[in-house]
Amino acid sequence: MPIDLNSDLGEGFGRWELGDDEALLSIVTSANVACGFHAGDPVVLRRTCEEAARRGVAIGAHVGYRDLAGFGRRFVDMPPEELTDDIVYQLGALGAFARIAGERVRYVKPHGALYNAIVHHEEQAAAVVEAVRLYDPELPVLGLPGSVWLDLAGRAGLRTVREAFADRAYTPEGTLVSRRSPGAVLHDPEEVAERCLRIARGESIAAVDGSRVLVEADSLCVHGDSPGAVRIARAVSDRLGAEGVRIAAFA
Amino acid sequence: MPIDLNSDLGEGFGRWELGDDEALLSIVTSANVACGFHAGDPVVLRRTCEEAARRGVAIGAHVGYRDLAGFGRRFVDMPPEELTDDIVYQLGALGAFARIAGERVRYVKPHGALYNAIVHHEEQAAAVVEAVRLYDPELPVLGLPGSVWLDLAGRAGLRTVREAFADRAYTPEGTLVSRRSPGAVLHDPEEVAERCLRIARGESIAAVDGSRVLVEADSLCVHGDSPGAVRIARAVSDRLGAEGVRIAAFA
Amino acid sequence: MPIDLNSDLGEGFGRWELGDDEALLSIVTSANVACGFHAGDPVVLRRTCEEAARRGVAIGAHVGYRDLAGFGRRFVDMPPEELTDDIVYQLGALGAFARIAGERVRYVKPHGALYNAIVHHEEQAAAVVEAVRLYDPELPVLGLPGSVWLDLAGRAGLRTVREAFADRAYTPEGTLVSRRSPGAVLHDPEEVAERCLRIARGESIAAVDGSRVLVEADSLCVHGDSPGAVRIARAVSDRLGAEGVRIAAFA
Amino acid sequence: MPIDLNSDLGEGFGRWELGDDEALLSIVTSANVACGFHAGDPVVLRRTCEEAARRGVAIGAHVGYRDLAGFGRRFVDMPPEELTDDIVYQLGALGAFARIAGERVRYVKPHGALYNAIVHHEEQAAAVVEAVRLYDPELPVLGLPGSVWLDLAGRAGLRTVREAFADRAYTPEGTLVSRRSPGAVLHDPEEVAERCLRIARGESIAAVDGSRVLVEADSLCVHGDSPGAVRIARAVSDRLGAEGVRIAAFA
Repeated sequence: MPIDLNSDLGEGFGRWELGDDEALLSIVTSANVACGFHAGDPVVLRRTCEEAARRGVAIGAHVGYRDLAGFGRRFVDMPPEELTDDIVYQLGALGAFARIAGERVRYVKPHGALYNAIVHHEEQAAAVVEAVRLYDPELPVLGLPGSVWLDLAGRAGLRTVREAFADRAYTPEGTLVSRRSPGAVLHDPEEVAERCLRIARGESIAAVDGSRVLVEADSLCVHGDSPGAVRIARAVSDRLGAEGVRIAAFA
Repeated sequence: MPIDLNSDLGEGFGRWELGDDEALLSIVTSANVACGFHAGDPVVLRRTCEEAARRGVAIGAHVGYRDLAGFGRRFVDMPPEELTDDIVYQLGALGAFARIAGERVRYVKPHGALYNAIVHHEEQAAAVVEAVRLYDPELPVLGLPGSVWLDLAGRAGLRTVREAFADRAYTPEGTLVSRRSPGAVLHDPEEVAERCLRIARGESIAAVDGSRVLVEADSLCVHGDSPGAVRIARAVSDRLGAEGVRIAAFA
Repeated sequence: MPIDLNSDLGEGFGRWELGDDEALLSIVTSANVACGFHAGDPVVLRRTCEEAARRGVAIGAHVGYRDLAGFGRRFVDMPPEELTDDIVYQLGALGAFARIAGERVRYVKPHGALYNAIVHHEEQAAAVVEAVRLYDPELPVLGLPGSVWLDLAGRAGLRTVREAFADRAYTPEGTLVSRRSPGAVLHDPEEVAERCLRIARGESIAAVDGSRVLVEADSLCVHGDSPGAVRIARAVSDRLGAEGVRIAAFA
Repeated sequence: MPIDLNSDLGEGFGRWELGDDEALLSIVTSANVACGFHAGDPVVLRRTCEEAARRGVAIGAHVGYRDLAGFGRRFVDMPPEELTDDIVYQLGALGAFARIAGERVRYVKPHGALYNAIVHHEEQAAAVVEAVRLYDPELPVLGLPGSVWLDLAGRAGLRTVREAFADRAYTPEGTLVSRRSPGAVLHDPEEVAERCLRIARGESIAAVDGSRVLVEADSLCVHGDSPGAVRIARAVSDRLGAEGVRIAAFA
C-alpha cells in the first residue's frame, strides 16, 4: 500500500507570502490548496494549481471559514446551511483554477478551526459533507480517523481518507496532544521521519506517555509554514523512499 | 428574431437584501447573478441559481471588482493578470451553484465600474476576455455595442451579445447619456416599453436631443433595484408579448 | 427616575440600507451605532453620528465581531486579547466620527452574537471590559442584567446600565425567551408600550407563562430593522410620555 | 536643522507578517503605521503603537484605500466624500491605539496608490486634506514636494512635511524615476546613505541621468519590507549620525 504526503499550500494573500510552496510541491503528493476564505487569493490559487498540475501533485480543496483576519483558526458558530454554501463556493472557485491548469479538484480537506470543529460538531460536519455531496460525490475527503466528519462522510457514501500528522505527538488513545501541552510538536526531522515510516508500515508509534499506539493513516500531513518545515518534509520523503515505501497520491 | 430580457440579480449580501429577485425572475429570461466580489454571498448565489433554474431563466455570471463597500461601482486600477484571476474565481464559484441547481453558467456580463471601464480600457477588457477564454470559450459575453470589450471578445472567438438599456437615454451617437445629465434615466413604464419594442424590432428610437438613433441589441437590460423596477420590467415584457415579439434567452 | 430608549442604528453598508434611522433618531435617546465590523461603513458612521448629534441623541458604540457576512450574529471563538483589540479599533473609529460631529462616544453596547456570548462567556466578557477600560474607563456599558458582562464591568469600575427588550417575552426567571420559541417576540405596539411603561415604573410584567416577573432596567431597547419597528418605538415613546415618564439618555 | 527618518510599519495582517518592525523601530524616528484598510489588523496596530511609544518613535497614520487584496497599491476611483470618511475612520482607529499606548497620532501619510494618486488627483487630494482637517487640523501631513496633496494641505492650513525616498532614483526635475525603469531603486547601503547625507545637508544629488538635482526634504523614507531594508536603514542612520546630522522626528 502506498502512502500519501499532503501539505497545506497556497496560503499567501495579496502582498503576503507564507510557506515555501515551491519546495513543498517538489516533495508532497497532495496539495491542500487554500480557497480564498481563510487564505489564498485568486492569483495564488492559480499559481498553486498550475504548479501542482505541472508536477503531478493532486489538488485538494482546503476549505475553511470566511475568516482572513483569523486565518480560519477561529471557530465560527454559523448556521449549517450557510456553511454548506460557503464550502460549495470555495470548491467551485478552486475548481475553476484546477480546470484551467488542466486538472481538477481531487479531494477535500477542511482547514484549521473547521477541521477541529467537525471532529465532534455534528451539524457542521454534516454541512461540509453535504457541500461535497452536492458539488461532486466522487470526491474523497481527508480527515482525522474517528472524527464525526469522516464518519458522516462515509455514511453519505463519500470515500474517506485518514490522515496522520507527521510532527504531532499522540495520546495513548490515538488523538492529538493539544498544541498547548509540552511536547505536542516534534521538531527533529529524523524522529518525525522515523514515526512516519512506522505509520506507513502499519506499526505502532510511541504515544506522548511512552506507551505504544497504533495510528492508522492513508496520508501523512507535513506542515509547510513553520521554520524547518521543508527540511522535515524532505526527511520524511527521503526516509520513506529509502525504505522502499511508495509515496503516491490517494486521489 | 427573439429578444432577451436580462436583469441584475442576487445582489443581497448577508443580512442585506436588494431588489425583488423573485418578481424579476418571473419576468426576465437571463439573470445576471452577482458572484460575491461586489455583492452576493454563497447563500444568495445558491438561492438565485436554484430559482433561476426552476424557472428556466438563463444564469449569467455578473462579475465585478472585489469591492463590497463600493458595490463594484468604483474603478479599480489593478494589474490585468490579477483581474483575469479574480474573474476566473468568480466564474468558478457561481459555476458550482449553477451546477448543483442542475444548470450551468450560460454567459458572462461584467458589472458596474468594470462594465464601464472595459468600454474603453483595453488592458482590463483583454483581461476579462482572457478569463472567459480560459474558463470556458463557449460562453457568450454580454456588453455594450461598440465597446472594446465586445470587440476584443469577438476577436478572441467568443460569441458576443449586444445589450441595450431599457430605461436609459441615448445620445445621437448611440452611447448612453451620463447618469449625471438630466433626463438620463426614464421612469415611465409605457415610454420604456415603447422604446424596447422599437429596439426589439430594429427600429430607431428618439435620442436625448430628439433626433433618431438606431440602437442594435440582442438583449434588453431592465433594472432590478430601483423603485418601480419591477413595474417597468413587467411593462416591457407585457408590451413585447402583446406585440408578438418573442422573448427568449440568447444563451 | 427617567428611562432611556436605545436602538441599533447605522446598520447599512455601502449600497445596502437597513432600518429607518431617520425615524428612529426622532424617537430614541440613545443610538447604538454599528462600527464597521458587522455593519456600518465610514459614510454611514458619519451620517449617523452627525444626525444623532444634531438631535441630541447619545452616541453609543455598537461593537461586534468582524463578520460582515454574518452581520455579527455568529459567535466567533477568538483569543480574548484579539477581541480586546478589535473592540478598541471600533471604539476609536466611531470616536472619530462622534468627534467631528461635535460629540463623543457616550457608552458601549456589544452587538449580536457578542452580546449573547458575554452573558456567560467569561473570557470574552473580560476582553470587552478590558477594551473599554483601556479606551476610556469613564464610558458606561449597556447590557443584560445578571450577565457576566455587566458583572465584570462593574467590578472593573465601569458604570453599568441595565437594559430590557421592549418586544421580547421573558421567562419567570427574568431571562429572554429564545427567539426560536413561540411567542418570543411581541408585535402589538400597544402591548409592548404597556410593558415598557410597567418596566419604567419598576412594576412587574407578565412572564411567558403568565406569572409575574420583575425586569429591572435603566434603558429600553426598541428594534429598528423589523417591519413595524418604527411604529412600536413610537408607541412606546408616546405611551411613556403620556404617562409622565421622562425619557432621557442615561449617558 | 534635524532630519526625520520614516518607515512604513505595522504591515502584517492576521497570520501574515511583513517587514522587521522591531529592527526598524530601533532606527527610525517616525513610524507610518498601517491602519487596517490596506494592511494592519488591530493586534498589529496595538503592538506597533506600543512599541513605537516605548521607543519614542512618532506614530503616524499610514492611511490607504480599503484594499487588503491589493495592499492598497491599486488606485480606486471612489467618490471624494467617501474617501474622506474612509480616512477619518482609519485615523480614529489608529488614534485609539496610540492613546492606549500613552501617545497620540502625530502625523498623516497616505499609502501606496493613494500616495501616488494625490500627487496629481485634486479631488482625492482634497478629500484626504478634508479628513485631516476634520479629525485634527493640528496634524502635520507628509508627502512628496510639489504634490497637489501638500499644496492643498498647505492652503488648508495644515503643516506640510516634505519627504525624500532614500533608495529611489530621481529625475533631473526632482520627481521619482518610475519603478519600472532600470535603475529606479538603489540597493547599495553606502550609496543610499551618502545620498541621504547630501539631502539632509541641503546639497544636490545625482539624478538618474548624471546631472545634479536638489531634493528638498524634511524627512527621509527608508523602506521596511524589502530584503536588505534594515541594513540600508541602519547605514543611513549610522552615516548621518557619524557626520553629525541630528535625526529627530518632525512631529
